[in-house]
Amino acid sequence: MTDTINHTTDHQADAIAAAGRGRPSRPAPLDAVTVDDTFWSPRIETVVAETIPFQRHQLDTVGHLHALRHEELVGDPVPHIFWDSDVAKWIEAASNSLVHHPDSDLDAQLDDVIALLASAQDDDGYLNTYFQTVEPEARFTDLRDAHELYCAGHLIEAAVAHHAATGKTSLLDVMRRYVDLIEDVFGPGEGQLRGYDGHEEIELALVKLAGATGELRYLELASYFVEERGREPYFFDLEAERRGTDGWFGSHFPGADHPGRRREYLQGHAPVREQTEAVGHAVRAMYLYSAMADLAREQEDSSLLEACRRLWDHLTSRRMYVTGGIGTSAVNEGFTEDFDLPDGTAYAETCAAIGLAMWAQRLLRIDRHRRYGDVLELALHNGVLAGLSHDGRCFFYDNPLSSRGGVGRNEWFDVACCPPNVARLLTSLGSYAYAFGDDELVMHVAISGQVRVPVGDDEAVVVVDADVLGSGRVELRVAATTTTPFTVTLRVPAWSRTTSLTVAGIEVDLGDPAVLGEDGYVSVTRSWSEDDRVVVQLDTAPRRLRPDARLADHAGLVAVARGPLMYALEEVDNGAELQMLALPRDAEVSVGHVGGLDTVHAAGTRTSIPGEGLYRTSDPVEEFAELTFVPYFSWANRGEGEMRVWVRETP
Amino acid sequence: MTDTINHTTDHQADAIAAAGRGRPSRPAPLDAVTVDDTFWSPRIETVVAETIPFQRHQLDTVGHLHALRHEELVGDPVPHIFWDSDVAKWIEAASNSLVHHPDSDLDAQLDDVIALLASAQDDDGYLNTYFQTVEPEARFTDLRDAHELYCAGHLIEAAVAHHAATGKTSLLDVMRRYVDLIEDVFGPGEGQLRGYDGHEEIELALVKLAGATGELRYLELASYFVEERGREPYFFDLEAERRGTDGWFGSHFPGADHPGRRREYLQGHAPVREQTEAVGHAVRAMYLYSAMADLAREQEDSSLLEACRRLWDHLTSRRMYVTGGIGTSAVNEGFTEDFDLPDGTAYAETCAAIGLAMWAQRLLRIDRHRRYGDVLELALHNGVLAGLSHDGRCFFYDNPLSSRGGVGRNEWFDVACCPPNVARLLTSLGSYAYAFGDDELVMHVAISGQVRVPVGDDEAVVVVDADVLGSGRVELRVAATTTTPFTVTLRVPAWSRTTSLTVAGIEVDLGDPAVLGEDGYVSVTRSWSEDDRVVVQLDTAPRRLRPDARLADHAGLVAVARGPLMYALEEVDNGAELQMLALPRDAEVSVGHVGGLDTVHAAGTRTSIPGEGLYRTSDPVEEFAELTFVPYFSWANRGEGEMRVWVRETP
Repeated sequence: MTDTINHTTDHQADAIAAAGRGRPSRPAPLDAVTVDDTFWSPRIETVVAETIPFQRHQLDTVGHLHALRHEELVGDPVPHIFWDSDVAKWIEAASNSLVHHPDSDLDAQLDDVIALLASAQDDDGYLNTYFQTVEPEARFTDLRDAHELYCAGHLIEAAVAHHAATGKTSLLDVMRRYVDLIEDVFGPGEGQLRGYDGHEEIELALVKLAGATGELRYLELASYFVEERGREPYFFDLEAERRGTDGWFGSHFPGADHPGRRREYLQGHAPVREQTEAVGHAVRAMYLYSAMADLAREQEDSSLLEACRRLWDHLTSRRMYVTGGIGTSAVNEGFTEDFDLPDGTAYAETCAAIGLAMWAQRLLRIDRHRRYGDVLELALHNGVLAGLSHDGRCFFYDNPLSSRGGVGRNEWFDVACCPPNVARLLTSLGSYAYAFGDDELVMHVAISGQVRVPVGDDEAVVVVDADVLGSGRVELRVAATTTTPFTVTLRVPAWSRTTSLTVAGIEVDLGDPAVLGEDGYVSVTRSWSEDDRVVVQLDTAPRRLRPDARLADHAGLVAVARGPLMYALEEVDNGAELQMLALPRDAEVSVGHVGGLDTVHAAGTRTSIPGEGLYRTSDPVEEFAELTFVPYFSWANRGEGEMRVWVRETP
Repeated sequence: MTDTINHTTDHQADAIAAAGRGRPSRPAPLDAVTVDDTFWSPRIETVVAETIPFQRHQLDTVGHLHALRHEELVGDPVPHIFWDSDVAKWIEAASNSLVHHPDSDLDAQLDDVIALLASAQDDDGYLNTYFQTVEPEARFTDLRDAHELYCAGHLIEAAVAHHAATGKTSLLDVMRRYVDLIEDVFGPGEGQLRGYDGHEEIELALVKLAGATGELRYLELASYFVEERGREPYFFDLEAERRGTDGWFGSHFPGADHPGRRREYLQGHAPVREQTEAVGHAVRAMYLYSAMADLAREQEDSSLLEACRRLWDHLTSRRMYVTGGIGTSAVNEGFTEDFDLPDGTAYAETCAAIGLAMWAQRLLRIDRHRRYGDVLELALHNGVLAGLSHDGRCFFYDNPLSSRGGVGRNEWFDVACCPPNVARLLTSLGSYAYAFGDDELVMHVAISGQVRVPVGDDEAVVVVDADVLGSGRVELRVAATTTTPFTVTLRVPAWSRTTSLTVAGIEVDLGDPAVLGEDGYVSVTRSWSEDDRVVVQLDTAPRRLRPDARLADHAGLVAVARGPLMYALEEVDNGAELQMLALPRDAEVSVGHVGGLDTVHAAGTRTSIPGEGLYRTSDPVEEFAELTFVPYFSWANRGEGEMRVWVRETP
């Protein structure tokens, strides 16, 4: 038996350490991961059973599909410039869902919608509902505002997902024809548009298309769009001059009165390699950075990777909410200043948290490090999941960290980017949780289920039983093995204060920095026998998070977390005026269950200030108050009362 | 000796009580009050010696005065629509200053500026620099935005002040001619404009003009403007329709996309008697409410007074900062929602606090009650005074209650309403502090100096020695008396927890509600002998103010006050990251002096959260920190470091 576990010798420890770090990996394909998790599976089932049909219904009733029948469109409703992206994300989510939930009716629905798209495509390959039906003469004249290539990008992602799920090339063919046109129109050559889209998306989509087709030219086009961004002469100035009219956003373009911010809004303020701070519209930023990480990997481009690392560090150390939500302001749907993270007005768009997960997934392909894995886990369990109601039919677009009440999820939005984005993410969750290296399974996020791991020309099967939200026991059992040794790599989350690991019953010393380094990943390579188990025991005791002093408005406040979940107080459990509650520093906390939710309880206090008037000289009165915290993602599912993530902490 | 002091009999106590309440009073004329106060006099001297000359210089160099020579104006600079009001407020401040600081040079400067105004006046009486030189055809077509009658109002106030100070009618004559025209143009009659100005001001100015001239028609015009406001059909809609173009604010008009808020912005959302909440632009609101109080008094109009009381209660119980600052948002320079009083972004415009003092002064004429007197004192010592730098040359337009540093006063503003507004207020301070009833001196705000009190056809002199900011001893000494008995009335501030009062050496029982009722005013009527003294001993121990729970972001915070002054922490005394400081509930506080300022000191703590990253699991570390509080008004005079009024309080 070849076996490089734990700390038998320094040499072996080094080998383990080396094995676990710096090696590339790729997301596990959807069909290789079957999620069977008490936490996640009900949510995915809800998306499959409720969200996807409901969103199909929305596309019908709002008019997206009708609008694809150009000849029947008589002006009402007028297609929104984003509509094609809504259709695309529904296709992507529905395609993903077919992988583990075969459904001939849904398969046929997909064929119908794709046939509509094909019939809507112009002879030269162009496909955009808004411009084809409303402003046919204005094609590619308002890249800054009109989301034309953004829509194309989502349709490309949809095509790749549909092809991967069904083997059909119907939409892939349509989109390859469209990309042929885009390739002709955009570029540095004579007569070409030296430009790119104001809303990034097509860049990462083209990387996916290159992966699905093996055609490097798509990668080159992605690279062109990424590299051209922010260069002088500034494309959007030239475009505006040529157009001679306001763009689609008109004078209301965010930051219109401040050219610098207007450029930052769409990450056009500098060439991407020179960018140092996460700025502007948060979703745009995440999609750009995802493409940058993709290209850094595909082109082994260290300066692009360096830019990604810089931006990641800046974002996560200065501009990220404790929930993994990002983007402070509704004004630009994005970033403001360092350490400007107000709770009540937090924008923290669901799509931005999804984008953060997408970027993390891509950086983990290059550099498996807990700085990415921890944030991936955090965003998935909090900033992303909060976007979806328990019944799968209502959505948060923005995700504040406190509410004075009266805030709830909506069924749909005029700009309906978030609902289908949640759906496509949850139906592809396995690819975020698991990755494959060479003869290696990498577990970024512990989610129960079964993973088929390619090993040489063979395949191993690992069954994961992860009770991350309860006991903290995570077991990876080799259910079917191979003769070739392979590696099991897993992330030890930074949130677990004491963690133990056994491999086939033998304890591994995680205190040895050669075994578990700062990257937080530990790898075990061996010849596995059937039923060999890797067992991790995580510390899931509730813990308190306290803010960097520079989060000035959060001084003296504390947030409660357990495992990967952030917790919050809700009015339904704790009464109104949550701001008057405090959690003493020495209060015992315990875990429990309330209405199907894992809860955290503590003996707290409720302060009142007797008297009248806005400002009172009376002494505060404090009384005992049992505090009940519920997971943040679950808030606003039991009425629209007050909510708070950050709670006063008293000495 | 006829003597109705204190508690010798119940009957006498009743007489005292009855005497003190519900009786009208009028502000003491400027010439009757000589301020000689260690706190206020240096500030007034600074205004006289520095601010007024400096602002005259600004009117010269920015171009206000040049613009009055229409024939010489060649388009650069283009007069701002507000410019006449800047000139007016300077005239008012300079005139006020002449009362106690005779200055033949300043007198001559005033004559010159007034001559310029007279020469600029059109034959029909019209006088407005912007419209006369830039848009002569557009006169009275944009009342909503263009501040035409607002400028006229300030010029009327200037004329009244100049006349009162100098006896000259030069400006009064000019403005009466202009008002003749305004009276012709506006009104309900055939061919008249059934309208009013978007920015209230002329209403209260016309009441002053009526007072100065004895002409009731000015009162009627004021009443017309006040009553017409907010009625249907809505004047500004009709005006906009007639004009056919955007107003001066254009599409940037605050709340342009929300007709309801757009009306509230200028208090046009309902007829004034039906208004229940202080809304919109804060200065506009204060000027309107001041005029409403004036008219309620002059016309003995109880429903107008009732509206004032409702608005006052709403404002002071829900929308007023602890400094007496009002107006939350820079967007509308005004009010937002109840209990929305963020510190760092507080607008709390200096002019709005001045407007609040103006309104309080008017309500006190009808109803001497501490609900007005306490707020008047608070606003003067904090929200107003913070607007002026120690050197008298720099000004805050907005007055936040916390700063992360880098915020300081400016010499001037494009819209320079606040600097001359502070100047005219401080040069008329005596009229805010003291009022006269029938044979009665009323002290609303204890400021040292000398007051000549009309008694019958005679005059008494009362010398006040008020150490409100120090020992709390306030002495009113009858320096010259009359044969007729007269009344001395004073406000016992709510902030003084224990107060004693002696009259000619005899103690008065302030615990008797018949002597000191809820109104907070106590009156003593007697035949006074020379050197009789009324001595009040106030409790000036530092105290803590705690917020109503509905100020949700202030839960757990405390503000320190002493006497009428609010205090603040500044970085220069306490180091950076003030948010990490806390004031334990049982900490001893003491008073002291730092750099000429009265300070409050306490043994506090400084918390740090060891570790790295935005959110940390490490336990907080607390160390001793000596906290030094300085008066809020004095902040940002020793560098532009951090500042905080509200500080964390720990149990």
